[in-house]
Amino acid sequence: MFLKRIASTGEFSPGKMTKQTLAQGESLFAGLNCFEPGQEHALHAHEGQDKMYLVLEGAGEVRVGGTTETLSAGDGAFAAAGVPHSIRNPGPGRLIVMAILAPPPRKG
Amino acid sequence: MFLKRIASTGEFSPGKMTKQTLAQGESLFAGLNCFEPGQEHALHAHEGQDKMYLVLEGAGEVRVGGTTETLSAGDGAFAAAGVPHSIRNPGPGRLIVMAILAPPPRKG
Repeated sequence: MFLKRIASTGEFSPGKMTKQTLAQGESLFAGLNCFEPGQEHALHAHEGQDKMYLVLEGAGEVRVGGTTETLSAGDGAFAAAGVPHSIRNPGPGRLIVMAILAPPPRKG
Repeated sequence: MFLKRIASTGEFSPGKMTKQTLAQGESLFAGLNCFEPGQEHALHAHEGQDKMYLVLEGAGEVRVGGTTETLSAGDGAFAAAGVPHSIRNPGPGRLIVMAILAPPPRKG
């Protein structure tokens, strides 16, 4: 399948950051996370699941383990399984991030 | 780990397309593929391995299964395990693509 102009498909919510699925296979999941200014995905870790962020639009404060950096479009971050990570949009613009997970999240 | 200005780290070879590793965990692999005009990654499939392409710079002709589309920066493609795929840079510019694989390639 093809994904055209990925960032343009991002949908925002005034209440909290959003998650959309872009593609999913048996082993790989790709989604879009959209953040209005001030919204965040709080610190969390995935046991047994690697995660990659790729910033498509805007800028975000990304924490991986004990380090926080400000990432802009064209930057990324990798959190190996078990490593705590978070992302926050300090504003003033919107933030759109591709989130890639392997193995895919299991709905429970 | 953080990956800043990912496309700027791409390295090209006059002989053939290049592959660089960006990040690798137990379950997820992210790399960079760089293509001079006319270079390609010929049609192939990965059994048991999902793959995603994300175009970071330039434009490429991407085939997934029986369909070929021209993708530009900000576009992507997903080839589920076993689905043949290829990518070619028709030029005139350079092409830089992030390739994400799960599970990671096993050297052997």
